Amino acid sequence: MKIALDAMGGDHSPQSPVAGAVEALRDFPDVEILLVGDQTRLQSELSRHDTRALQARLQIRHASQVVDMADSGLDSVRRKKDSSISRAIDLVKSGEAEAVVSAGHTGALVAAATIKLRTLPGIDRAALGVLIPADGGVFLLIDGGANLDPSPEHIVGFAVMGSVYYQAILGGNRARVGLLNIGTEPTKGTEFAKQCFARLQEAPILFSGNIEGHGIFKKPVEVVVCDGFTGNIFLKSIEGLAKAMVGWIKDEVQKSPVRIAGALLCKGAFQAVKSRTSTEEYGGTPLLGVNGICIKAHGNSSPVAIRNAIRAARSAVKNSINSRIVEAMQPLHENPLHRESPAA
Amino acid sequence: MKIALDAMGGDHSPQSPVAGAVEALRDFPDVEILLVGDQTRLQSELSRHDTRALQARLQIRHASQVVDMADSGLDSVRRKKDSSISRAIDLVKSGEAEAVVSAGHTGALVAAATIKLRTLPGIDRAALGVLIPADGGVFLLIDGGANLDPSPEHIVGFAVMGSVYYQAILGGNRARVGLLNIGTEPTKGTEFAKQCFARLQEAPILFSGNIEGHGIFKKPVEVVVCDGFTGNIFLKSIEGLAKAMVGWIKDEVQKSPVRIAGALLCKGAFQAVKSRTSTEEYGGTPLLGVNGICIKAHGNSSPVAIRNAIRAARSAVKNSINSRIVEAMQPLHENPLHRESPAA
Repeated sequence: MKIALDAMGGDHSPQSPVAGAVEALRDFPDVEILLVGDQTRLQSELSRHDTRALQARLQIRHASQVVDMADSGLDSVRRKKDSSISRAIDLVKSGEAEAVVSAGHTGALVAAATIKLRTLPGIDRAALGVLIPADGGVFLLIDGGANLDPSPEHIVGFAVMGSVYYQAILGGNRARVGLLNIGTEPTKGTEFAKQCFARLQEAPILFSGNIEGHGIFKKPVEVVVCDGFTGNIFLKSIEGLAKAMVGWIKDEVQKSPVRIAGALLCKGAFQAVKSRTSTEEYGGTPLLGVNGICIKAHGNSSPVAIRNAIRAARSAVKNSINSRIVEAMQPLHENPLHRESPAA
Repeated sequence: MKIALDAMGGDHSPQSPVAGAVEALRDFPDVEILLVGDQTRLQSELSRHDTRALQARLQIRHASQVVDMADSGLDSVRRKKDSSISRAIDLVKSGEAEAVVSAGHTGALVAAATIKLRTLPGIDRAALGVLIPADGGVFLLIDGGANLDPSPEHIVGFAVMGSVYYQAILGGNRARVGLLNIGTEPTKGTEFAKQCFARLQEAPILFSGNIEGHGIFKKPVEVVVCDGFTGNIFLKSIEGLAKAMVGWIKDEVQKSPVRIAGALLCKGAFQAVKSRTSTEEYGGTPLLGVNGICIKAHGNSSPVAIRNAIRAARSAVKNSINSRIVEAMQPLHENPLHRESPAA
């Protein structure tokens, strides 16, 4: 299976993508990687690794441009046609690669993937599905930030795609879906939230109703659905608090030698929680709904995170995620109840 | 100074409100409390405390009804005219009390306060200002959930009120204000977020631009402004994650006797972080913008949290918060640039 990797994306590029690609090639013998980016820099970076045994499964595809964080996502697709993100997606479009992985600009990845690959039949909007640690496992938040102003019908699509992905990748019983809201009653929230609630009740999913942030980590549902603005606020806020709490514990521990000794004894516990809440472990976030497998890795991805994003791409291909999504969306198009209302 | 306390509101009523009132009366000799609720139950609850020295400053005002969590906020004002929340607010309206404190139904408190007390001159919408722990202090998030669909003009009002409250209660230099958004650039976010950004740039505040959740706990600003839906999602999410992380650390510590021993040695560090992230400490959330001091305590308030909410009410009265807000809003009404545009 060929996977195109945007080797110029992310805070630590090309080092992290290249090192992550090498790790992935060692761990997954069925994977071939097309490294996309500046040929000279990538060759120089690759020379720091022992790739002799991997060369048959590793190619460089030159791309002369890089999308900066300051670029607008949509503009970058039009103006930087030879960017590593665009070129990597082109490889999926042409059928040369089965999936694309990038730690680069999220907006550019979403825009380029949506424009070049288009959405799947029956899907109007793509969405980012982010795995988040919770008591006894993980849940999937969708949308993590691809669509800031979706309609209630788009939210139904996100819920279906999230359910399909969760079950395909994590197994278990049929995934329960909750709507991220500010109260559990159906009457709670904005007009938009109320409309989403009504639509989700009729959707071909296992809808558990509204879910609030303070109960979410007890994992009452496997899939949490919301618009991309709310989802992105949620993700960044918990990321910020997790880091802050670790820092506060460290500060307090430093205050006495006894505490420092104690902290050394329970170092393993801290490390376990740190690795549990680490974005590395859940490195790969699928952009669900585009006609091709597209995985976003965190901007500050380490080599391990890149390797895990490649693993996520491989799983998505192996589990035929996209044909499952198309199939799961069928009832929405066959049943007039589920059709988009002209008023929406 | 007389403070009306809704003694029937919150998860642990009337025990917590009554015990909290007794603590507050002991700690703040200038405070008198009007306990509002079922006379028989309150007398019985009071008999469990030694209130001999406090009797001159403590009265019960009977209210026969209680707003349940299942009630709609607005309906409760119309249908439960003799609820403890409504009656407590009536005492502020009539001038008998200078402030009201309630751990009850947030929606009912916001609705009753807005309808009965009305908003301050120049303010169209009230908002909840929530103090949140961060590196080296606290920041104020406004709106925590009073208004789910505000206009950009309302957001400007929230920013002004938040700045005034922060400076009056916490002192320091002029408060910096950030707009909670999903990126730092002015072009980031929904159309609403972009409009808010433009209005905040012209507002009589120290606007620092957009702020993202993962940087927020480093306290780059003193006041974080957003709509009530986003603010409430933020609050509940970080509350949920803080509890989950404490639970995960406990689980991991339990896994070996060495870790348990280590955890005992750094118990003080854990307790310091726990108290720092506790809602008890910052127990009182002002509903800013209504014509009267109105403090919301957390639903699961302990007696200490109620006492601290009473302390917050006392501070707000002493610091003449409301006249300062009216004054700070003046430039918005004098300068045509700041006036509401007909298009908004």
